[in-house]
Amino acid sequence: MKSFVIKGDICYSKNKDNLITLKDSYLVCENSLCKGVYEELPSEFCEYELFDYTDKLVIPGLSDLHIHAPQFAFRSLNMDAELLDWLNNSAFMEETKYSDNDYAKRAYSIFANSLKNSVTTRACIFATLHKDATKILMDLMDETGLETYVGKVNMDRNCPDNLCESSAQRSADDTVSWVLDTADKYKSTYPILTPRFIPSCSDELMKKLADIQREYKLPVQSHLSENKDEIKWVQELCPKSKSYGDAYDKFGLFGKEAKTIMAHCVYSTKDEAELMKKNGVFVAHCPASNTNLSSGIAPIRRYLEMDLKVGLGTDVAGGHSESLFRTIADTVQMSKLYYRLIDNTAKPVTFNEVFFLASKGGGEFFGKVGSFEKDYEFDAVVIDDSILPHPQKLTVFERLQRAVYLNADFNGITAKFVKGEKII
Amino acid sequence: MKSFVIKGDICYSKNKDNLITLKDSYLVCENSLCKGVYEELPSEFCEYELFDYTDKLVIPGLSDLHIHAPQFAFRSLNMDAELLDWLNNSAFMEETKYSDNDYAKRAYSIFANSLKNSVTTRACIFATLHKDATKILMDLMDETGLETYVGKVNMDRNCPDNLCESSAQRSADDTVSWVLDTADKYKSTYPILTPRFIPSCSDELMKKLADIQREYKLPVQSHLSENKDEIKWVQELCPKSKSYGDAYDKFGLFGKEAKTIMAHCVYSTKDEAELMKKNGVFVAHCPASNTNLSSGIAPIRRYLEMDLKVGLGTDVAGGHSESLFRTIADTVQMSKLYYRLIDNTAKPVTFNEVFFLASKGGGEFFGKVGSFEKDYEFDAVVIDDSILPHPQKLTVFERLQRAVYLNADFNGITAKFVKGEKII
Repeated sequence: MKSFVIKGDICYSKNKDNLITLKDSYLVCENSLCKGVYEELPSEFCEYELFDYTDKLVIPGLSDLHIHAPQFAFRSLNMDAELLDWLNNSAFMEETKYSDNDYAKRAYSIFANSLKNSVTTRACIFATLHKDATKILMDLMDETGLETYVGKVNMDRNCPDNLCESSAQRSADDTVSWVLDTADKYKSTYPILTPRFIPSCSDELMKKLADIQREYKLPVQSHLSENKDEIKWVQELCPKSKSYGDAYDKFGLFGKEAKTIMAHCVYSTKDEAELMKKNGVFVAHCPASNTNLSSGIAPIRRYLEMDLKVGLGTDVAGGHSESLFRTIADTVQMSKLYYRLIDNTAKPVTFNEVFFLASKGGGEFFGKVGSFEKDYEFDAVVIDDSILPHPQKLTVFERLQRAVYLNADFNGITAKFVKGEKII
Repeated sequence: MKSFVIKGDICYSKNKDNLITLKDSYLVCENSLCKGVYEELPSEFCEYELFDYTDKLVIPGLSDLHIHAPQFAFRSLNMDAELLDWLNNSAFMEETKYSDNDYAKRAYSIFANSLKNSVTTRACIFATLHKDATKILMDLMDETGLETYVGKVNMDRNCPDNLCESSAQRSADDTVSWVLDTADKYKSTYPILTPRFIPSCSDELMKKLADIQREYKLPVQSHLSENKDEIKWVQELCPKSKSYGDAYDKFGLFGKEAKTIMAHCVYSTKDEAELMKKNGVFVAHCPASNTNLSSGIAPIRRYLEMDLKVGLGTDVAGGHSESLFRTIADTVQMSKLYYRLIDNTAKPVTFNEVFFLASKGGGEFFGKVGSFEKDYEFDAVVIDDSILPHPQKLTVFERLQRAVYLNADFNGITAKFVKGEKII
């Protein structure tokens, strides 16, 4: 359990509308939790080790609620296709390579190192269906010091032969074996149940996964209402469901039993969104991916008005960058186009609102995470924005906006703490 | 006049559909012009100096057809407003500072240095209405070695008192004085006539500017059909015009007499676009700005089908980044949303098409610029993409896509040549 003090220019969200920024202030970590932020350091903390990041920005670690580790290698390639073609021609082709543990180790090492050096401190990660490669990924993620949930993917239909589990039983057995191997193995890496999406999981498999979820008390992540063709397909596959979300719900995998993330929700109907609210499902909003795959724009203003749980996802490699700074800017930008092109009563979301989503909004999935308020787990990232010179005086808030929009993170970060541990 | 050889992984567009990529090849510069690209170096060039950029990407310099130098200081700030509010509350407020030459020198030094270190080799730049500050900017731009057109802005109505020329005559006189001072002063910096946009230029001023254009044979840059409120306003100000573009045309400032750039063209009607085609007006497509200011998405596929002249603009600070790599990715992304949300018969533009727009498309404004074909002016940028590790083999084309989407330029560029001069 760590106790120390950070000095710097401190930024954090209390709520959607309230982003605190403080020049030359002190952030105290006590027993790996946030104790408080002070403009003058109280004498009781003067004996604590001091990390002096004067003139640097100190922000809470950000949470990436949706990212595919095996797709990291081909991010930004073949971006001319839509979802279902892209899945068949890019994503699935790359994912087959992870039957080779050597390739997996090489590729996942690059992924883990990139995530470690990003502004992300927490992430929910899709692996592939390969049990061994998934364990390799979990070993590597645990070494980074980040806190992550990692999912062995389930898929037993509508996928290429060499990327398809041979039966629902085999998929379920592999899942149980993987969960038993990993559930208590790591310091900060945990298994998460990961049916890829309904089109690639048979009814039988979904039922078995629901049983596994209940037996092992696993959280769940999947995809929802990303693309109109996909939604139509789900309706054909699950003719009795009232919506795509209702199909998950009928299988018992839609948040009632376990904390659950659904990525995208571009075309969620009012009923589907209300079911998400009722069940406490987290939306992982992935604006870059929704643009790259020509999916559309999710109605984030509506979800905020409904008080849904919302966080951000980079969705590498539908999204091309692992930067949550980039994702914050993308979210603001896409909400402006939603307002302009789809619904001029849906006011664009603001920088403050989206900074909240990237930090405290998504952080909620991990507990008291994503803020510097008292008793929050101590995740912090230190950014050197002096690489962005300017002729005028700037407030800390203005510097934060510049750091985010101009991707100061692309030039590396100065320091990073997760749960009170300094990992960079 | 320079002659030398570059070795590296060479990428350039021949036309919209034909992007050439060559591993370990040779690009010959002879008398500051491109001589050719060769997989084996012909013996006649073996005596030339060789710059060895093995394993690095070598691309033509890119052209930024629309950027506001005085707005660079506040890029990415106050992005929650729409065009007309943003102009009044952000852009105009910053631009008043350029009556102070010391501030101008400080701010423009940062701008010039950033542009020098970007992938841009040519640019069309708005300054402010201040004659002296504009000359300071031109001095600084010339020192960079880039080739640029820089415009003292004209504005004599509908702007704050401290950012409004006192009369059309005064604006015209200042313009002539500035043109006489700068037209032949520089190695690679030239004046360009820059009426800000019709709402800020009286009829009298526009007529005088047309006279000045003809007398001094100046190119022209301005804004067109960016925002629906703006278009309505122009219609009120110029009730006899058939369109915003027609209003410029009636003043004689719409490409018939001089090469002309119009930024944005988000809402150009078919008639306006046809007039642009007839007059040879260049469209500066500025996707980041059009998103940030909630303007909309320009129908770039339509403009390509009509065979309009199109280049890209970063439009700092409506756009938040000076990176044309970022602008390429933005253009592809926004065209996907145009296809999805506005017109599903307008096929998204491809990476190849947009790389062409950023290089040869916009380069055409400057002459034979933006390609490595024979007799093109020798502009080249060398990018080290080894900062983006990958587990699999990649083609040169794949590496180019990654460098662009993942902004390898944010970590600096290895070398840069403009008209055969090595400037980095």
